[in-house]
Amino acid sequence: MLETTLIADTLPRAIEWKNGELYLLDQTQLPQATVMEKQETVEQVWDSIRVLKVRGAPAIGVAGAYGLCVAMKGSTDKSLNEFIEEMDKKAAYLDSSRPTAVNLGWGLRRMVKVAKAASVSSAQDLYDVLVAEAVAIHEEDKGLCRGMGENGAPLIKEGMGILTHCNAGSLATSELGTATAPMYVAHSQGVKFRVYADETRPLLQGARLTSWELQKSGIDVTLITDNMAAHIMSQGLIDLVIVGTDRVAANGDVANKIGTMGVAILAKHFGIPFYVACPSSTIDHDMPEGSGIPIEEREDHEVTEFGARRTAPEGIKVRNPAFDVTPNELVAGLITEKEIIRAPYTENIKKLFG
Amino acid sequence: MLETTLIADTLPRAIEWKNGELYLLDQTQLPQATVMEKQETVEQVWDSIRVLKVRGAPAIGVAGAYGLCVAMKGSTDKSLNEFIEEMDKKAAYLDSSRPTAVNLGWGLRRMVKVAKAASVSSAQDLYDVLVAEAVAIHEEDKGLCRGMGENGAPLIKEGMGILTHCNAGSLATSELGTATAPMYVAHSQGVKFRVYADETRPLLQGARLTSWELQKSGIDVTLITDNMAAHIMSQGLIDLVIVGTDRVAANGDVANKIGTMGVAILAKHFGIPFYVACPSSTIDHDMPEGSGIPIEEREDHEVTEFGARRTAPEGIKVRNPAFDVTPNELVAGLITEKEIIRAPYTENIKKLFG
Repeated sequence: MLETTLIADTLPRAIEWKNGELYLLDQTQLPQATVMEKQETVEQVWDSIRVLKVRGAPAIGVAGAYGLCVAMKGSTDKSLNEFIEEMDKKAAYLDSSRPTAVNLGWGLRRMVKVAKAASVSSAQDLYDVLVAEAVAIHEEDKGLCRGMGENGAPLIKEGMGILTHCNAGSLATSELGTATAPMYVAHSQGVKFRVYADETRPLLQGARLTSWELQKSGIDVTLITDNMAAHIMSQGLIDLVIVGTDRVAANGDVANKIGTMGVAILAKHFGIPFYVACPSSTIDHDMPEGSGIPIEEREDHEVTEFGARRTAPEGIKVRNPAFDVTPNELVAGLITEKEIIRAPYTENIKKLFG
Repeated sequence: MLETTLIADTLPRAIEWKNGELYLLDQTQLPQATVMEKQETVEQVWDSIRVLKVRGAPAIGVAGAYGLCVAMKGSTDKSLNEFIEEMDKKAAYLDSSRPTAVNLGWGLRRMVKVAKAASVSSAQDLYDVLVAEAVAIHEEDKGLCRGMGENGAPLIKEGMGILTHCNAGSLATSELGTATAPMYVAHSQGVKFRVYADETRPLLQGARLTSWELQKSGIDVTLITDNMAAHIMSQGLIDLVIVGTDRVAANGDVANKIGTMGVAILAKHFGIPFYVACPSSTIDHDMPEGSGIPIEEREDHEVTEFGARRTAPEGIKVRNPAFDVTPNELVAGLITEKEIIRAPYTENIKKLFG
């Protein structure tokens, strides 16, 4: 663990718990400004989650858990019953900040459940239980990222070019990220490689976040527009693709940020292995194949505007699917915290979890 | 010709010569405002070309030719020799507005050559020769577009979905455009189809120009980001791809706006025919294959900024190739004004021009 602890010291932190206080990196100000905001009240945490100052499924889960600690810090002089009653209310309140974020509700339910099961005699003790559980959730997420990093790092050889899409990085998780975890581990081992980051329209997570965090970490990163990937691959500059995922079906089909499937098809055309980094919790065993995964269609203005400036005609029709589904036959492997799962996926996923 | 004349009436015009005056559509104001600017002086024309109010290789050639008429309009009371001397100077001046635009110099040289070869007895007569030649250049370009339109239109069947990339449209040429010409002709014949326009990062010609001109013309158009093409294709929404080109090698390799090769690879993956519309003048018989075509690398800020807003970290490395080269094996056909050229390209291009 020593090695990955050292890497972590060089990484930008999205979430920090220090001396009993929660700090969140305001990602809406990236890449222009790096501001760690101390969270003074539960309302402030609610707002930080709501306006995407903190984003990325795992990171939101961790932020919500710490947010409950922030909420309850001033109630340690209350009775146990009063404390628990208030904790239930604050957890529900925090959960309302992003109703569709699965990890947020999951983290808050776990916090409340552990607190209610604890044998303690004071509100102060119960508060300490909450803090310990939030730290545990945070540490577990770090552990998952480290596991993916250690399993994926051997794929990265000296001199390679790696393409990634969107931000499945340190900023979206705790510490090493998912797609970035093998890169951070390989970098810490002294392996030299180049990363090409797709800017990832429409919301530019690659330009704003991935290129920022890799640059900060001293990894050689080059920003390209999404439509340059084929040209860069054709020049022999890419040897490996690693992306993250929002959900993996039981047959290995991969839902991820729009544009991921296009990258996978290009990679196949040029004979470049395409890997997906995913904590095993991302595998949805109840979803037999990717065609069943619902694709969120987002608002038109993300495509027709940039910042405050309109760039497309008024009244133009727009499609804005937020995700696409990459079929399993394009996936060289799923880099999980347990092992790299390879085809045939249905069988091998069952074997690992069955 | 009646039919295409009728189409032209519904099209936005990039260039108009009316009652002895030149009007240029200020494309830098699109899609927010549609402003036809009367060109009063040669300096104004120079500036319009320089700042891309008029853009697209064929359109620049036509604008330059008319620009020379604007330049010489006030000199019809001079002697023939004085007129010719001034014409040489003004042609050189106009040519300096965009030194790398091949069509600009070509059009101006043709104008000067024709004027010098004319047997006329007055500057007024010579001015009339210039106007007639500029109109001829304009009409020839219209004819090329119509030819591509008529040859390509039969590819478009009722109910089809067509993907295009960048702007190879009416705005870049005279009248029907290149990639758009088959669409305008099919539309005028009452064929119903849908077009998906890639926004085309970094400069968004698809969002700003293609979607605007197709919308104006009453064609069903939907704007997508470049990285959505694979998802849209996977849903069975695309039956045909038509793009333009900047240069075609003698073996049929196609240089076009960055992102074109990616679209061609996706089209192959999904079994969708990928066509390239090109006036036969675009075929470079001295360039044996696409690997020899130089790829312009443009400035970083096109990728790292949007409008005035910076969207990537300071100091980030960027690639910004303006073009890519699609290998001939991905091309279903070259839609020229003569015929649709199909593989084997080297042989069939030689046959047509040899």
